[in-house]
Amino acid sequence: MTGLQQRLARFAAERDWGQYHTPKNLAAALSVEAAELVEIFQWLTPEQSARVMAESASAARVEDEVADVLAYLLQFCHVVGVDPLAALEAKIERNETRFPRPGTGHSME
Amino acid sequence: MTGLQQRLARFAAERDWGQYHTPKNLAAALSVEAAELVEIFQWLTPEQSARVMAESASAARVEDEVADVLAYLLQFCHVVGVDPLAALEAKIERNETRFPRPGTGHSME
Amino acid sequence: MTGLQQRLARFAAERDWGQYHTPKNLAAALSVEAAELVEIFQWLTPEQSARVMAESASAARVEDEVADVLAYLLQFCHVVGVDPLAALEAKIERNETRFPRPGTGHSME
Amino acid sequence: MTGLQQRLARFAAERDWGQYHTPKNLAAALSVEAAELVEIFQWLTPEQSARVMAESASAARVEDEVADVLAYLLQFCHVVGVDPLAALEAKIERNETRFPRPGTGHSME
Repeated sequence: MTGLQQRLARFAAERDWGQYHTPKNLAAALSVEAAELVEIFQWLTPEQSARVMAESASAARVEDEVADVLAYLLQFCHVVGVDPLAALEAKIERNETRFPRPGTGHSME
Repeated sequence: MTGLQQRLARFAAERDWGQYHTPKNLAAALSVEAAELVEIFQWLTPEQSARVMAESASAARVEDEVADVLAYLLQFCHVVGVDPLAALEAKIERNETRFPRPGTGHSME
Repeated sequence: MTGLQQRLARFAAERDWGQYHTPKNLAAALSVEAAELVEIFQWLTPEQSARVMAESASAARVEDEVADVLAYLLQFCHVVGVDPLAALEAKIERNETRFPRPGTGHSME
Repeated sequence: MTGLQQRLARFAAERDWGQYHTPKNLAAALSVEAAELVEIFQWLTPEQSARVMAESASAARVEDEVADVLAYLLQFCHVVGVDPLAALEAKIERNETRFPRPGTGHSME
């Protein structure tokens, strides 16, 4: 993931896109790409959405939008200096405490 | 990243959330978290947005929303069977061809 | 609608919010409120989503988010000088031509 | 506005789109259109965003996305039975109480 992040940073630097890549703009671009992923599913039933990868055209669209979302997420993280995997690990640990596994009795003790 | 993806999958399975985790719903949840990231920046100037990590309260919000976006992106990818790093790598390669580095003369030849 | 638009403009002017109300920021705020509307529905089945107004807590949330979306849409339109009803009317007319009513044979003539 | 809402409802009914127009799907479609509005502004400075209507191509895009956002907002409201103007009026009244006009001393009395 670090390798991809560096390639994205070099790609942007070579094109002098740094001036556009404020945290605010990258967050907006990320949300626009997430919406393009939503668009694929917007009129589908839950069952149809579960079969989205069965058709090559919609599968390619899904892969493309996933790539765009991850690209902007990594660029955003690069610019603000956040390690996304560490942020997620910390969050999972908080959530495992907040929402204990049902049946373990943790929440009752 | 695979380790985090497995922890998220186990976390959801233990709570019987699989029924909610259709590709359609996870894409919507991803877009909602991306919007929460946008919300942090919505009234900031570009300059203020560049200093978002200087204040601990907004830095913590940013890390939290990054974690949420990545969590739903990984869960979405798990459910549809897409490798997000491979999807991004393929996209970067397409983009390096489509938008050649300025000054190399590629686009002019 | 014009009356509401004027009240919103006065409300913002009295609080000196004009500096924040660039078209870019208002578009972002609109998208954040739209995501908050999506959030209400994100884990619901289509059937559950059709009954969202039957429960008073979710009905109130829906009304609140609808108000927020419309508020930012009207403020955006005020700032850029677009009449939203005229824009929609023009769009409906274009769509009635592009997607003729099935069975009328328009698309075949 | 009611007239436009009825035209949209008739347009959808004639094409048998009612089955797709669950509140959940219409909220998602609204958020996708809001993101398309954001996309116009994503790389612009605040100053550039303030001049978006000066160029005819971007002005037309803005009008088109405003129309789409309003179209889905009205269709959503029709399906859930919410009057958007009444919802906004109620919200403005709550906000005028919550955020009193500065300098009037209301919040102090």
